[in-house]
Amino acid sequence: MRVPFQTLCDTFYRVLTSVGYTGENARLCATLFAENQRDGVYSHGLNRFPGFVSGLHSKQIDYHATPVKIESFGALERWDGKMGVGLVNAHFCMDRTMTLAEKHSIGCIGLSNTNHWMRGGAYALQAAEAGFIGICWTNTTKLMPPWGSAEKSIGNNPMAIAIPREEGHILLDMAMSQYSNGKLEVLKIQDKTLPLPGGYDTSGNLSVDPAEILKSRRALPIGYWKGSGLALVLDTLAAVISGGQATHQIAEQKSEYAVSQVYIAINASGMMGAGILNETVEAIIKDFHSAAPLDENETVRYPGEGMLRTRLESLEKGVLVDEKQWQQLLEMQR
Amino acid sequence: MRVPFQTLCDTFYRVLTSVGYTGENARLCATLFAENQRDGVYSHGLNRFPGFVSGLHSKQIDYHATPVKIESFGALERWDGKMGVGLVNAHFCMDRTMTLAEKHSIGCIGLSNTNHWMRGGAYALQAAEAGFIGICWTNTTKLMPPWGSAEKSIGNNPMAIAIPREEGHILLDMAMSQYSNGKLEVLKIQDKTLPLPGGYDTSGNLSVDPAEILKSRRALPIGYWKGSGLALVLDTLAAVISGGQATHQIAEQKSEYAVSQVYIAINASGMMGAGILNETVEAIIKDFHSAAPLDENETVRYPGEGMLRTRLESLEKGVLVDEKQWQQLLEMQR
Repeated sequence: MRVPFQTLCDTFYRVLTSVGYTGENARLCATLFAENQRDGVYSHGLNRFPGFVSGLHSKQIDYHATPVKIESFGALERWDGKMGVGLVNAHFCMDRTMTLAEKHSIGCIGLSNTNHWMRGGAYALQAAEAGFIGICWTNTTKLMPPWGSAEKSIGNNPMAIAIPREEGHILLDMAMSQYSNGKLEVLKIQDKTLPLPGGYDTSGNLSVDPAEILKSRRALPIGYWKGSGLALVLDTLAAVISGGQATHQIAEQKSEYAVSQVYIAINASGMMGAGILNETVEAIIKDFHSAAPLDENETVRYPGEGMLRTRLESLEKGVLVDEKQWQQLLEMQR
Repeated sequence: MRVPFQTLCDTFYRVLTSVGYTGENARLCATLFAENQRDGVYSHGLNRFPGFVSGLHSKQIDYHATPVKIESFGALERWDGKMGVGLVNAHFCMDRTMTLAEKHSIGCIGLSNTNHWMRGGAYALQAAEAGFIGICWTNTTKLMPPWGSAEKSIGNNPMAIAIPREEGHILLDMAMSQYSNGKLEVLKIQDKTLPLPGGYDTSGNLSVDPAEILKSRRALPIGYWKGSGLALVLDTLAAVISGGQATHQIAEQKSEYAVSQVYIAINASGMMGAGILNETVEAIIKDFHSAAPLDENETVRYPGEGMLRTRLESLEKGVLVDEKQWQQLLEMQR
């Protein structure tokens, strides 16, 4: 079923107020959840909201907290998220990073002690909307085996990069695992296979069978050894730049909290002018779109293109929601 | 066969002087080529040197040129490489980026009109050696089909990230293609298969057969659609930040020159002190090494670990060179 975007925002907000989380930040938090659903990022929208609200209830997430600046090093700052709402902390930090980039052309923030931001792409897009290049990544608990092991010991550390473009920003938003564990679980239950090899079976062969991959515990990092290496590097950078926890420390906790994140903004439109920026990016996309597709009914899509289509459809026809999840949400606000 | 590292440096240098390229920069250039070979990066060492010297001869590479600052935006600068020696330009720019990072904690340079830097990892390591986090990437000509096409239309845009560590820096140095075209060609000639699927065969199935992949022209980006997206993003960032050419413009030339690059340095040791920096990174690597290897005779290796082993072996026993290539080099200096 589909519900109007504004209804989704308002319903999320009412649920938040029902647990005591009110005001501007709660409104922002509700909107970010609704936007994830609107943009087709169903893995980090409505389905995650009940768990998020539980986190508020249990006080694992402190909605009273706001980030505190710990250290200032010119164009780079360290902030402590104080275990506040991950989405709101992330939005705040990208905003602050843009302020640094306004002054220095490039700005960087390391954020420690924050909570799950849901969808990294949201904050990269926030920068692109304002004419900045936005780059951000987070570490996670141990979710993936490194190349050469079957023991989960590295994070999948999603990274998002957005570049402003008038007709639709370029947005790359990707975890370092080829498929998430959640995806493998869902396909296993549905008795479906993966479209492409996503890990090894228990005999050590590449496999499209989610059940086998979950059994072997050898899900693939993107690009085999390369994504495994990049995951380690992103975690190390997050810990070093923020001064916060690395994956190995997060994994010692009972659950995933107090993660570390990095935000980078580059004042692209300020440096070169919005017009030239857009011409440069547009020429690249135009050439990209000229590549002959393998399937003549398809087009070759830049990262973010599919999301934009989903967004426009959601705004026109309403946001797609799972009926059961939607009913659950309506009950939560009572 | 093996030759002493210093002999390799000196021989490269003598060949450069024989074509008129002398002085400090020629010495640096020779050393960078020798270091690539020393570190086991045989794809960008001795085997590429004759081609490089041809570039000097043909004046496609102007060894008299030095980079010129075009614009200064605080912590970010744009430099024009003036079609000079790619390796020397890259070394200069990472050095300059560190100067910016000394002042602002993070520094960024966009370099336009430069030539092939051979091995991106060299410049990231240069930063790590000085206590900085080093990040750099380059665009290239069209080398790879984007996801959903068999038409080469994106670069493989290698990216390198290094993080300082006393016992050996973390160094990730990776192109966005799973295997380079060069690698596929070599294995095809040797009638060997790839260790892991590296593209599609002509029937549209994932394949380990280099001949089939070269025929279908569908080599894999790392992580399928993800690496394809990242390649496009890195090219766009390089063009936007440097103001230089994007891949589609480079591909209009007869050969690959006047590429665009980005350098980022973060003054990690300056910000947090070299001691705490090293403790943080060391704790991450210690935990990483504790993951049980699949093969009990192997260890799980962080990016850069294998390279360091090769380097130490090269310094102890001499640098491994192909005998034929070495003879060719000796003849070049006459």
